[in-house]
Amino acid sequence: MDYKFDVRNSRNLTMLVDFYELTMGNGYFEDGLKDKIAYFDMYFRRVPDGGGYCIMAGVQQLIEYLQNLSFSEDDIKYLRKKDLFSEDFINYLENFKFSCDVWAIPEGNPVFPNEPLVTVRGPVIQAQFIETMILLTVNHQTLIATKANRICRAADGRPVMEFGSRRAQGYDGAIYGARASIIGGCSSTACTIAEQMFNVPAIGTMAHSWVQLYGDEFEAFKAWANIYKDECVLLVDTYNVLKSGIPNAIRTFDEILKPLGCRPKGIRIDSGDITYLTKKCRKLLDAAGYEDCKIIISNSLDEHIIRDVLSQGAKIDSFGVGERLITAKSEPVFGGVYKLVAVEEDKKILPRIKLSENEEKITNPGFKKIYRIFDKETNTATADLITLHDEKIDENSALEIFNPVYTWKRKKLTNYYVKPLMEKIFDKGNLVYTSPSVLEIKEYSKQETEKLWPEVLRFENPHSYYVDLSSSLWGLKHSLLHQYSNIYK
Amino acid sequence: MDYKFDVRNSRNLTMLVDFYELTMGNGYFEDGLKDKIAYFDMYFRRVPDGGGYCIMAGVQQLIEYLQNLSFSEDDIKYLRKKDLFSEDFINYLENFKFSCDVWAIPEGNPVFPNEPLVTVRGPVIQAQFIETMILLTVNHQTLIATKANRICRAADGRPVMEFGSRRAQGYDGAIYGARASIIGGCSSTACTIAEQMFNVPAIGTMAHSWVQLYGDEFEAFKAWANIYKDECVLLVDTYNVLKSGIPNAIRTFDEILKPLGCRPKGIRIDSGDITYLTKKCRKLLDAAGYEDCKIIISNSLDEHIIRDVLSQGAKIDSFGVGERLITAKSEPVFGGVYKLVAVEEDKKILPRIKLSENEEKITNPGFKKIYRIFDKETNTATADLITLHDEKIDENSALEIFNPVYTWKRKKLTNYYVKPLMEKIFDKGNLVYTSPSVLEIKEYSKQETEKLWPEVLRFENPHSYYVDLSSSLWGLKHSLLHQYSNIYK
Repeated sequence: MDYKFDVRNSRNLTMLVDFYELTMGNGYFEDGLKDKIAYFDMYFRRVPDGGGYCIMAGVQQLIEYLQNLSFSEDDIKYLRKKDLFSEDFINYLENFKFSCDVWAIPEGNPVFPNEPLVTVRGPVIQAQFIETMILLTVNHQTLIATKANRICRAADGRPVMEFGSRRAQGYDGAIYGARASIIGGCSSTACTIAEQMFNVPAIGTMAHSWVQLYGDEFEAFKAWANIYKDECVLLVDTYNVLKSGIPNAIRTFDEILKPLGCRPKGIRIDSGDITYLTKKCRKLLDAAGYEDCKIIISNSLDEHIIRDVLSQGAKIDSFGVGERLITAKSEPVFGGVYKLVAVEEDKKILPRIKLSENEEKITNPGFKKIYRIFDKETNTATADLITLHDEKIDENSALEIFNPVYTWKRKKLTNYYVKPLMEKIFDKGNLVYTSPSVLEIKEYSKQETEKLWPEVLRFENPHSYYVDLSSSLWGLKHSLLHQYSNIYK
Repeated sequence: MDYKFDVRNSRNLTMLVDFYELTMGNGYFEDGLKDKIAYFDMYFRRVPDGGGYCIMAGVQQLIEYLQNLSFSEDDIKYLRKKDLFSEDFINYLENFKFSCDVWAIPEGNPVFPNEPLVTVRGPVIQAQFIETMILLTVNHQTLIATKANRICRAADGRPVMEFGSRRAQGYDGAIYGARASIIGGCSSTACTIAEQMFNVPAIGTMAHSWVQLYGDEFEAFKAWANIYKDECVLLVDTYNVLKSGIPNAIRTFDEILKPLGCRPKGIRIDSGDITYLTKKCRKLLDAAGYEDCKIIISNSLDEHIIRDVLSQGAKIDSFGVGERLITAKSEPVFGGVYKLVAVEEDKKILPRIKLSENEEKITNPGFKKIYRIFDKETNTATADLITLHDEKIDENSALEIFNPVYTWKRKKLTNYYVKPLMEKIFDKGNLVYTSPSVLEIKEYSKQETEKLWPEVLRFENPHSYYVDLSSSLWGLKHSLLHQYSNIYK
């Protein structure tokens, strides 16, 4: 955790909740189920953009929310005025104390469809109440971290700067979007407050308005170079890149920077044909002796455009990516869901299932655990295995995993080791986990992503990473399926 | 303004700013331009989803931001540590006092490409600094209000409930997205905090987990009906809508509600084939004597699906719309831009232009004003006319308007009246405008949208509403274009 400063540390978002969490809470309370223990899983069903994996993000903000859970006097007054809830329930909320257990996959991990990212165990009113914010928090940041990861992979080692605040969907979209972008691999952000809050580098230079204000491009460049010297990056497309922007930039480097003993840092192009312009610019800059002057590109970029122009030989040193990253434009919804998977009765865990006409919407029942299985020799991640919570894996025996739909597809693993993926975050409402800093999460994410097979990393039609169920879990699920389909046939 | 409660009233977002606003501010300051007066326009270039108009939203939040503009001790410390800004500039920020004039089109108005939504006049450092937040605020809420308006039109008078918090892009995406959805026409929201903040109705009933917790659907329904009586809405698709959900719902209405003298409020379906299921459900409910029981539909809806199922005769009373509304999924970016259009020198206003290879990216120069022209007889909006700020329109004379590209396309208007579209929001930094309540804005929006031609309201290939330039403005723009293209030919 590296908050130096956070305008939101004091922000209580308890009432950012779907109203039905409250009507259900009141219902459970009135029906005498207030202390009923329930288990919920948060998980998602598919990777956006047809990718092979997602990057988990948002756990730190989830922690802050859960730590701040409480109803103010105003909240209580508001709820009473709705004239829908019992006075006893309202009193319960007034004295609300979060007491759930929470497990989550740490941020930065590659995650896959149908495995729990977050599991909650606790009194059903509480475990239900936090649904909206668990989904909102993890859906948003995982979406953006995953998109950033795609874009950074396309940039193939070149730095990618997050530039999207102005097109974000709301203030937090910009702020936590910047955070998630860094986790996904971006080198820096234009969002200043994100540096204050998360200690990630904020950067920026000039807009077209700087050039327009002076009216004359050369005057504008000169003024900038005089002030920023070694940090000088010039935006060269206000009027005409090749006829005006680059010649004026070179003249500025020659006449202002050179006498000061300074080298220019770069030029930025924000419009036009990127491949054509960058090749021409590179030649002009090199010919003038500015081989070290970087070329920075921005203008509605995404992973496809970046791959395309790089494959055409565009001469680019770094990318500024805005709206298509900060909104995950090509697929702006991360469809995480939060489902009841078990209840406790007389201290026994009873699994619950939700059926659906749509097979992929059928839930995995029970209180579960996830193991990531690695090849002992290569450290490559081979599969994730979802088991019941009390199953152990003996790493000294061979392990047979199988496709949960096409069960004849089997694979016997030897020479492997396993890592439990989820960590306990809250124990009976008490925080028992310390978040790494954002830059640490970014590093961790890079390291864990590199353990995936290249086939899983592919942009188009990646290999489906195995997420399998243990025999016991598979058996449990199918016995419940048969039980219910007998009732409703 | 109807804030009863706002966790964000105290929130200072001054540092939510693209870093280049700061490097430019420092640059202007260092170059002696701190008091230079500049004019900026915020506008957009195209309507999302190929629609005919957008719905302006976000002005109230822009006001709150501008009223709270100030740098805290922490901010100043942070900026000093960057070691990039002059001490004089940092002192200037420490004593920052917002002193710009701001004009905006009031929320709820239909707005069109290329007309200024917001105009700012003031010291260039200030007018530049607020770019990020003007764009972020107006882009986000206008995007969602516009999408909500499309979805509500598709629902053809049936109530649309905003259900998207869990899939929003961040907390403010949910909160201000709910606000914008109501402005665009939604009847209510599931986002509880939005009711507290904006006095808009929050609603909700039960999730699948309610049914799953009981294990037995009928038991779950009975418990709910006993508690909520006349407010009883049952979710009928946890196991099987027709074989289980509806029969159990009817049994609950018969056995629990009837003896209490209560009528059921509705049933909700969240999966499956909507047309087929709602027709079947309607018949079953009617046959059981529950003709007044509403059918509510949710499940990845948008304007296209809604129109489609209604055209197939689906029996639906209201819609819950989530992710595709709250993220404007089909087009999640509203591309508003903020451009320098003039500067002052010796009290004279000098227009500025930005060229581009891309003709549509060329700006409209100068300090401007917008008139909406209405037909006197029908009150229909005929065109918007952008003029220079000091032009007056004599409503007693005929008015000739012309297409700014195909200038031979001309139209002579008689029997019309005009309404200036923008209102002054801040005068030298002082707020001079009072926002209506969100529900008032919603009503106003409905009324103003109804003044558009049906051809402009069309979903696909709508008629392009005329946004023309006055002769003087057109002349000014073209003289600047010729001037610059002479330089760079």
